Amino acid sequence: MVRISSVSKHPTSSYKSSSMPNYHTSQPKPDTAIDRTVPDFPIAQVSDEDRYFNTHEAPEYLPQIEQQVQQFIDHHHTQTGKSVVLVTSGGTTVPLENNTVRFIDNFSAGTRGATSAEYFLENGYAVIFLHREFSLLPYSRHYSHTTNCFLDYMTERNNKVEIDDKFADEMLVVLRKYKQAQSTQSLLSIPFTTVNQYLYTLKSVSKLLQQLDSKALFYLAAAVSDFFLPSSRIPQHKIQSQASGKLVVDLEQVPKFLRRLVDSWAPSAMIVSFKLETDDSILIKKAKGALERYQHQLVIGNLLQTRKKEIVFVTVDGNQKWVRLTDQELQDGVEIESLIIPEVIKEHSKWITQHK
Amino acid sequence: MVRISSVSKHPTSSYKSSSMPNYHTSQPKPDTAIDRTVPDFPIAQVSDEDRYFNTHEAPEYLPQIEQQVQQFIDHHHTQTGKSVVLVTSGGTTVPLENNTVRFIDNFSAGTRGATSAEYFLENGYAVIFLHREFSLLPYSRHYSHTTNCFLDYMTERNNKVEIDDKFADEMLVVLRKYKQAQSTQSLLSIPFTTVNQYLYTLKSVSKLLQQLDSKALFYLAAAVSDFFLPSSRIPQHKIQSQASGKLVVDLEQVPKFLRRLVDSWAPSAMIVSFKLETDDSILIKKAKGALERYQHQLVIGNLLQTRKKEIVFVTVDGNQKWVRLTDQELQDGVEIESLIIPEVIKEHSKWITQHK
Repeated sequence: MVRISSVSKHPTSSYKSSSMPNYHTSQPKPDTAIDRTVPDFPIAQVSDEDRYFNTHEAPEYLPQIEQQVQQFIDHHHTQTGKSVVLVTSGGTTVPLENNTVRFIDNFSAGTRGATSAEYFLENGYAVIFLHREFSLLPYSRHYSHTTNCFLDYMTERNNKVEIDDKFADEMLVVLRKYKQAQSTQSLLSIPFTTVNQYLYTLKSVSKLLQQLDSKALFYLAAAVSDFFLPSSRIPQHKIQSQASGKLVVDLEQVPKFLRRLVDSWAPSAMIVSFKLETDDSILIKKAKGALERYQHQLVIGNLLQTRKKEIVFVTVDGNQKWVRLTDQELQDGVEIESLIIPEVIKEHSKWITQHK
Repeated sequence: MVRISSVSKHPTSSYKSSSMPNYHTSQPKPDTAIDRTVPDFPIAQVSDEDRYFNTHEAPEYLPQIEQQVQQFIDHHHTQTGKSVVLVTSGGTTVPLENNTVRFIDNFSAGTRGATSAEYFLENGYAVIFLHREFSLLPYSRHYSHTTNCFLDYMTERNNKVEIDDKFADEMLVVLRKYKQAQSTQSLLSIPFTTVNQYLYTLKSVSKLLQQLDSKALFYLAAAVSDFFLPSSRIPQHKIQSQASGKLVVDLEQVPKFLRRLVDSWAPSAMIVSFKLETDDSILIKKAKGALERYQHQLVIGNLLQTRKKEIVFVTVDGNQKWVRLTDQELQDGVEIESLIIPEVIKEHSKWITQHK
């Protein structure tokens, strides 16, 4: 295992607190030096990441995905000049059986990813939306996963289905944005279900996005499993429950692919990852640990309990900047992603300038 | 643990193959005698089921659910005279953490349950639809969980959202059925997510349905986990992945609640359970084992790979009757539930007659 040794990937100057005037700085600016007391790991023959790909098969549909992504990149590279963001969204599954009946899942409806994708589109980005199948999608999210049934928005008038008057005006606004994203070919949606599908697709898309150099942005909001069951150990058929009672599932840790993304798949891109915790006493420590380990640019930290009203930007220089909705904003239905995305884009713009 | 000793609950005469003329009988009629060589278990002080409820808390919302179900039962008992079927649908989750980020899930989109609920409604039943939240729902299922986004059915005309002409006619048919189910108060939807919510709700609803005596029908299509993590062992916060790598999840077997449903929660109702397998060599054996263990009336067996085109009715007299769609029916989009439900209802009618 190689511990990536930084420097070229993260100019700390790009994350000065002065550049994000709307954030509440929760702490004085800490020392910007990177802790070098943590020893590097010795170099191994084959990395865990390579071993993973060597022992797990790529999804059959991957070549089609690669073709679509290449067309999408070409279109925006040559036609629109838009920056492209890869937004990952939703949780991954870890199948416990080959004919999958049972699996381990990570909770995520995909709200953060789907909502963020909309604000990226509204701010002029082209969006590749790599999402868990059946999780929330940009735009349709306003009408799915509610306690309302799809058909509750409809009514019958003169032997025709019509949108109920109560919903018609708002739906028109959403529909126009959706059709706009379609007609400008600015939104490419790619589904995944298992952690294996996610990892292979991420790798392929990342390598293709490297063509865009610094104009590629990664916004990794998916809840990716830390654990997986090696394919060699997955039983072919449904696990039979025995009279003995207990089921013991012995999982392996998923290799840290973010390291490969940063140092070899898309080294010129700006990379934003998320850290979701439930215990507020370890959130910042975990975010800093991730930056140190992977040497990327920005971690957005959030707590499961409060994730819709506050998040924290943690940067390689050690800064922590909280983004919080006011009570009034919360009451008015302002979405925190409407504050997050413009700030992420500001940082990405600086990243692009620095790489020119 | 008490092994239920049969007789009064399953008049084998009600499952003669002559009563289901449309089924292909795959095997000669086997011996109808119940195997009595399997020894009964000794009586324990406290059953596993009671221990489960004693050590796990009921969902807070349960009293509201009970009130809704009671009103629903009253309405149909006194006003419409409809039989009531409880359809369970979708998979249960087993949380691995208290602030749930990770959980074990059983695969099920809820297609069988949602589709069956529609055919029960069309055949004059009132339906309590106990389903995994965000799984497929009756009627709206035609427009959700497809690769289409909700908004793909819409178009803008004269500054108004309208249903695209391509979908308008079919949607009108579906909308009418949905509004009909609403206006006649024939469909009560109750969501669950965890196996604990499912078990508590099943118990409450079952006890209430016992008021309807033999006019209550249970159609248990949900994919319920065989395993759970006892609440005493669930960590409060997100499990931290360690450098050591492995995660070992040590689960307990879920007590066999079907036994309690049959012998004490709703002993006068007719009960249909499902057996989903991936290995065809054990399907019939598992179905027969369930009937012997729980002493209920009917198991519908199906294989994950072929569940949309063939199922097998396995009854206490040992009969196996396959229901299969022809190639022509498959091509015409006939749903197998349109064949299953009328046959289940025939059996339920006999059950009611026998209990008069």
